[in-house]
Amino acid sequence: MTALPPFLAAALRQKTAHTPVWIMRQAGRYLPEYREVRSKVDFASLTHRPDLAAEVTLQPIRRFGLDAAIIFSDIMTPIEGMGVGLEYAPGPVIHNPIRTLTQVEAMRPLVPEQDVPYVMESLRLVRRELPAHVPLIGFCGAPFTLFCYLVGGKPSKEFSVPRAFVHGEPIVTARLLDRLADAMIAYLRAQAEAGAQALMIFESWGGLLGPADFRAVALPPMQRIVAGLQDIRARGVPLIYFANQGMANLEAVKDLPVDVVGLDWRVPLGPARKLLGPDKAVQGNLDPAVLFAPKDTLCRRIDDVLRDAGPAPGHIFNLGHGIWPETDPDAVARLVDHVHESSVR
Amino acid sequence: MTALPPFLAAALRQKTAHTPVWIMRQAGRYLPEYREVRSKVDFASLTHRPDLAAEVTLQPIRRFGLDAAIIFSDIMTPIEGMGVGLEYAPGPVIHNPIRTLTQVEAMRPLVPEQDVPYVMESLRLVRRELPAHVPLIGFCGAPFTLFCYLVGGKPSKEFSVPRAFVHGEPIVTARLLDRLADAMIAYLRAQAEAGAQALMIFESWGGLLGPADFRAVALPPMQRIVAGLQDIRARGVPLIYFANQGMANLEAVKDLPVDVVGLDWRVPLGPARKLLGPDKAVQGNLDPAVLFAPKDTLCRRIDDVLRDAGPAPGHIFNLGHGIWPETDPDAVARLVDHVHESSVR
Repeated sequence: MTALPPFLAAALRQKTAHTPVWIMRQAGRYLPEYREVRSKVDFASLTHRPDLAAEVTLQPIRRFGLDAAIIFSDIMTPIEGMGVGLEYAPGPVIHNPIRTLTQVEAMRPLVPEQDVPYVMESLRLVRRELPAHVPLIGFCGAPFTLFCYLVGGKPSKEFSVPRAFVHGEPIVTARLLDRLADAMIAYLRAQAEAGAQALMIFESWGGLLGPADFRAVALPPMQRIVAGLQDIRARGVPLIYFANQGMANLEAVKDLPVDVVGLDWRVPLGPARKLLGPDKAVQGNLDPAVLFAPKDTLCRRIDDVLRDAGPAPGHIFNLGHGIWPETDPDAVARLVDHVHESSVR
Repeated sequence: MTALPPFLAAALRQKTAHTPVWIMRQAGRYLPEYREVRSKVDFASLTHRPDLAAEVTLQPIRRFGLDAAIIFSDIMTPIEGMGVGLEYAPGPVIHNPIRTLTQVEAMRPLVPEQDVPYVMESLRLVRRELPAHVPLIGFCGAPFTLFCYLVGGKPSKEFSVPRAFVHGEPIVTARLLDRLADAMIAYLRAQAEAGAQALMIFESWGGLLGPADFRAVALPPMQRIVAGLQDIRARGVPLIYFANQGMANLEAVKDLPVDVVGLDWRVPLGPARKLLGPDKAVQGNLDPAVLFAPKDTLCRRIDDVLRDAGPAPGHIFNLGHGIWPETDPDAVARLVDHVHESSVR
């Protein structure tokens, strides 16, 4: 047993008294108290106002026995800080999609305390309020995922524009990914300095690439980020990589020296852990749809995930994707309690 | 060597002089002659007019050396025939989404020659025009995929409504899937009788289900369809199942007695063939994005797919997803020619 909070212990593959649990998008629209805040300000303002961002970050912590908090922000927030004009409608829409080397070079290098001071202030505010056993997670988008929005200009089902761009404009692609990697290194480092105790990198769209392209395009800037944060990691701040739709790319993700791999709900946890090896923890991966099942089905499906993850240390329970706005908060309470009760060692 | 056209021979795991190739959505918006037809009629009218549906089906056959034609229609066309009001905007929007057992029972059983005679007439028209070495493919949507549209009411990135419905309303779910399976049996059978020489079933959204739910929800109605068409299959009409986003579900698909499994671009063909076993052919799976690469890259990536598929008979070359509207038709010509040249045995 360790003195670390269960979330951090599990991330570092140490034994815990129970499996820790948190939920992607736990600060969000399924909570009436979040909708109450959002009824007064738009999404962008919420990410720019430390008092409100801190408030919505803390809301799910007050309500449920969660083992971690994640700062309320957006993966595009640091992109705004680099001088790229965008708005949320509700997904990010880029005023001038990035398609040329000139545009890539015109993006400002990110100086987080200067360009996005409100994110750092939110982290400091939340850390002050959080109970000691609930660590705070900082996050960013992975370079290829940010690239999809920046080149595509808007959310899309297939992201055909950025995916074609990868093949048609390999030089601009590589340069943009490098610049994004450097910005995310600075951004995550600043978040750790402002109080984040774990850092998560969301590769929401990496699963759009086949294995060869994933290795050639999405992985190198991720390796650059991880290499750039080894000192932070050495200080006990785990790195978590969420490989959404990642089944076909796990073989490549195995080579990425992160502490935790977040898995979507379609990846069987047992085989994934075997493939990723004993030096990586996993996070996930209940289907968010199962929160709409009757209580006994929900509990059975939670037990399935715990059993698939196995008895070895290094499992953080989570959904396999962000929680849906239509979810009943009572189902979340049930989930958190059941994970804790069912996983006592 | 066989007297069958290469496409049919490969589907039946027989040796062919070259790897056959066709392209999902080959009758579509990337062709100026298609856009010309569509400038005069809307999408729904095009599916209802046998003369025009036949014309756009034949357009890519005239232009490229393709090894198969696929009838121009939509997976929702037979659903209209069952009395469900819908329109294309551009994806299918259901006037009254199906959510109750009463609505499920109110759907008419499909009598294809009576309810969708225009589809059968299109097939007959096309068969008359096609060269002997170019077989005609009929198709339908898989029950779970149709279910996603019928319950959700409209296209969606995550299909959270139908996915929650699966867990909240298991009885309505099972009944609707059964009814859709029965309708698709009648529909595919009628297409074979009208001249379709192969039948393809599109599971566009099965990849939204994790492996356990795929087995419990999407697979049973598919098994029902395949069992209901064994006599058609015995007459030499191969069944093709397109398992989009199917990587995690291949183990389950292995148990489905179809001739060909269509694979999306993220599935490595070699391991997939090994897993599916020698009694299944595979179809796929070049990333549609690669058609935007320079000529030499495109050719190299085509060779990669051919090499991954291996020398054993039973590979039909295709994209791993529908071709994008922005694609240059010249790249398609290059692809078709290169597959033929590069795969000569």
